[in-house]
Amino acid sequence: MAHLMSTSCSIKISSSYRPCGQPLSQDRTVLPNSFTIKTSKSPFKRLVSKGHRAGRSCVVLATAAPVSKEVSANPRSGSDRSPNDSSKPQRVMVIGGDGYCGWATALHLSNKGYEVAIVDSLVRRLFDHQLGLDSLTPISSIHNRLRCWKAITGKTIELYIGDICDFEFLSETFNSFEPDAVVHFGEQRSAPYSMIDRSRAVFTQKNNVIGTLNVLFAIKEFREECHLVKLGTMGEYGTPNIDIEEGYITISHNGRTDTLPYPKQASSFYHLSKVHDSNNIAFTCKAWGIRATDLNQGVVYGVKTDETSMHEQLYNRLDYDGVFGTALNRFCVQAAVGHPLTVYGKGGQTRGYLDIRDTVQCVELAIANPAKPGEFRVFNQFTEQFSVNELAALVTKAGQKLGLDVQTISVPNPRVEAEEHYYNAKHTKLIELGLKPHLLSDSLLDSLLNFAIEFKDRIDTKQIMPSVSWKKIGVKPQTVPAN
Amino acid sequence: MAHLMSTSCSIKISSSYRPCGQPLSQDRTVLPNSFTIKTSKSPFKRLVSKGHRAGRSCVVLATAAPVSKEVSANPRSGSDRSPNDSSKPQRVMVIGGDGYCGWATALHLSNKGYEVAIVDSLVRRLFDHQLGLDSLTPISSIHNRLRCWKAITGKTIELYIGDICDFEFLSETFNSFEPDAVVHFGEQRSAPYSMIDRSRAVFTQKNNVIGTLNVLFAIKEFREECHLVKLGTMGEYGTPNIDIEEGYITISHNGRTDTLPYPKQASSFYHLSKVHDSNNIAFTCKAWGIRATDLNQGVVYGVKTDETSMHEQLYNRLDYDGVFGTALNRFCVQAAVGHPLTVYGKGGQTRGYLDIRDTVQCVELAIANPAKPGEFRVFNQFTEQFSVNELAALVTKAGQKLGLDVQTISVPNPRVEAEEHYYNAKHTKLIELGLKPHLLSDSLLDSLLNFAIEFKDRIDTKQIMPSVSWKKIGVKPQTVPAN
Repeated sequence: MAHLMSTSCSIKISSSYRPCGQPLSQDRTVLPNSFTIKTSKSPFKRLVSKGHRAGRSCVVLATAAPVSKEVSANPRSGSDRSPNDSSKPQRVMVIGGDGYCGWATALHLSNKGYEVAIVDSLVRRLFDHQLGLDSLTPISSIHNRLRCWKAITGKTIELYIGDICDFEFLSETFNSFEPDAVVHFGEQRSAPYSMIDRSRAVFTQKNNVIGTLNVLFAIKEFREECHLVKLGTMGEYGTPNIDIEEGYITISHNGRTDTLPYPKQASSFYHLSKVHDSNNIAFTCKAWGIRATDLNQGVVYGVKTDETSMHEQLYNRLDYDGVFGTALNRFCVQAAVGHPLTVYGKGGQTRGYLDIRDTVQCVELAIANPAKPGEFRVFNQFTEQFSVNELAALVTKAGQKLGLDVQTISVPNPRVEAEEHYYNAKHTKLIELGLKPHLLSDSLLDSLLNFAIEFKDRIDTKQIMPSVSWKKIGVKPQTVPAN
Repeated sequence: MAHLMSTSCSIKISSSYRPCGQPLSQDRTVLPNSFTIKTSKSPFKRLVSKGHRAGRSCVVLATAAPVSKEVSANPRSGSDRSPNDSSKPQRVMVIGGDGYCGWATALHLSNKGYEVAIVDSLVRRLFDHQLGLDSLTPISSIHNRLRCWKAITGKTIELYIGDICDFEFLSETFNSFEPDAVVHFGEQRSAPYSMIDRSRAVFTQKNNVIGTLNVLFAIKEFREECHLVKLGTMGEYGTPNIDIEEGYITISHNGRTDTLPYPKQASSFYHLSKVHDSNNIAFTCKAWGIRATDLNQGVVYGVKTDETSMHEQLYNRLDYDGVFGTALNRFCVQAAVGHPLTVYGKGGQTRGYLDIRDTVQCVELAIANPAKPGEFRVFNQFTEQFSVNELAALVTKAGQKLGLDVQTISVPNPRVEAEEHYYNAKHTKLIELGLKPHLLSDSLLDSLLNFAIEFKDRIDTKQIMPSVSWKKIGVKPQTVPAN
């Protein structure tokens, strides 16, 4: 490891940015003298990187440090949490904490007083490079993000960079951080990505299923009381012609009755990977007494949370492309740039939606009210249902108020899905735990549209149209042309 | 490839065996002068191995041959099939054709006039080596098996040795053999194996799920009319408190009705892998128009079929150990050796069972009556239900008739499963297609017991007790001790 210990690298802060110590709406705070980065596969228990401020660049030097020093530097009770709260989960590992939902969640939990560690392989950033895509918002490196968070709030978020499919790495994160709860966002999360070609389909299922299996084994082996909060998707259910319940349905059949897992009808290799995960987790709850909450999340929209708004270096990503962009966010970006809103097929596709501020709220509620040992709990995590046509109409109206000329076009549906169907999905369990929804409003749409307009120079209009076809997927590796 | 082309190896025929040309109950036939073995990743389209008889050993020499020669040597219509049957499937690829069900099926289909290719990585034989296990019956190498089959029947079964998780290999088998139907037994098929340790759990799901994904992609890309006959398991359903239907259930809920996939409650990482497969296949039928039959098979018993009985070198494997042995076969071996029958827990566990002669019959019926394009058809493939206690009682009675002293003991259940439960599973679809069941009878039990007695000197009694615990599975790789 000598080469690692003597390596230094510079992290340049973009000149268009405020330094970390200047929050957007707070007094200037002092940049900390040090922060921690963990690496895996070290012969030492931990490697700690010390960051030193040097003008507008920050030099990272890796040095070995004893564990005890860090433990004393990271007291287990957060500043916002009562010291008598010792029975409550305190230490939360956010797998996939550099992603869209994961980043917002990690900051929110840190802000609420939880001790947070982010575990991420950063492969999501690699996908952008490989496909020639980029977030609408410029996003900082994870290292700069965490340094900025520390500068503004004084709170440390630990960082473990590695792949949870590597069980040796995952074991080290568990034994080092000792989580009370694991929030698992660490999966390939795009349906179109999983339908690009055979190798991406296989990658998606292998990465997601094996990663989750490893997390289950790590909990069983190292932290059996740890509560798994797993991100599933409403897409696991498909569009049945009956009401969608939260995970289970009571069926009367030939004079007998049982409550069984709700039948699943997923419609991409990505959605299927989540179904596989749910089945695997349910089994381990029964066989090993794992406590787990499966959050079947709807389509998330929005970009700002209280925490990501604090500084530009904390900004979240916003995807508008045909692979990673989701319906409402994509429409707002299209409206901002004068591109017609792209409705796939008839536009009657109805799904559950939620504001990203509710994503972080839901995850916090699940952690604060953990499942019981052996319980496999399923929450449908969304706040409102919309059809694609309804969303297009809402964005059109909001855009017109801002003086935008918003058109809508129907494009051939690249997916295989019903375009007109019954849809009524229950979502009461998180409300019962205290969720206060941010319903979709004119002001949110204004804010999203204005945000998109602010960054419209960054939009690559060639990425807007759907490029992946469910029916045309083949076995040859696909490369996005550079035209 | 020069080293391969100049390599020769000797296949010795055990002196305790009849030569291939002497079938057990047929006239002596002439050993053929050549047979074919295919290899993958060759720079040539095919490598053909010529076998020459040399006393009691057979020298294999690998040489390159043009494709056209072999095509002419393998006419597409089988001898037992009408030449006017051109619309019927003729060429059947049996993935996993060296295993217990796969071997019996490959021979049966070949005997019925189908052109058959076996695709197998032979990893099942490696599992035995790694775990210190062995089949009750001595089984020949796949090469000797196929040479013997050719000698006795004049029929060639093509052989492709490789891993279907390697898509390059699988592509070559598809483009070389051009199957009309694929029978997919090529999965890790033991629930206890999948519960030995983390790496076997992960292997089972990765191997089974990715292998099946690759088969689906190969069909879509190369043989879109090809019918996939996939071996699932009745264990996918678990033990719900309502009747088990064949794949789908009609649910009325809150005043609306839909027919949905039957809810699954699998109870090992192996059983879960089959659920994942079923979900993946169902999606590709809908999205790509794949035609597929999922055979949810019960527990198979017996060892002899018409074909495997023809010669000792065609004998099928019979597993009696705690990892690969299944209930009825295991009980017969235990009775033969004077070991008490090992009932796990209360013994009320009820499952569907079938004779291996019905396995081969069911697969043939599925092939001869293929699913329609886009259809995902599910058959429950078993003929009778028994509880473990009922099986123990039947074996006890049959053993006593043969003068055996058969005792039964209850051992702690290594699995996590209900030991007393409702169980009523439908199984009419294969009957409707013409299945004539071989119901469990005294004569079958006599035959199985006598077979076990014949080979009792080969039994390793240390392999009989269950060695794998559902609750104690850990992350460290497990090695079976050599004591």
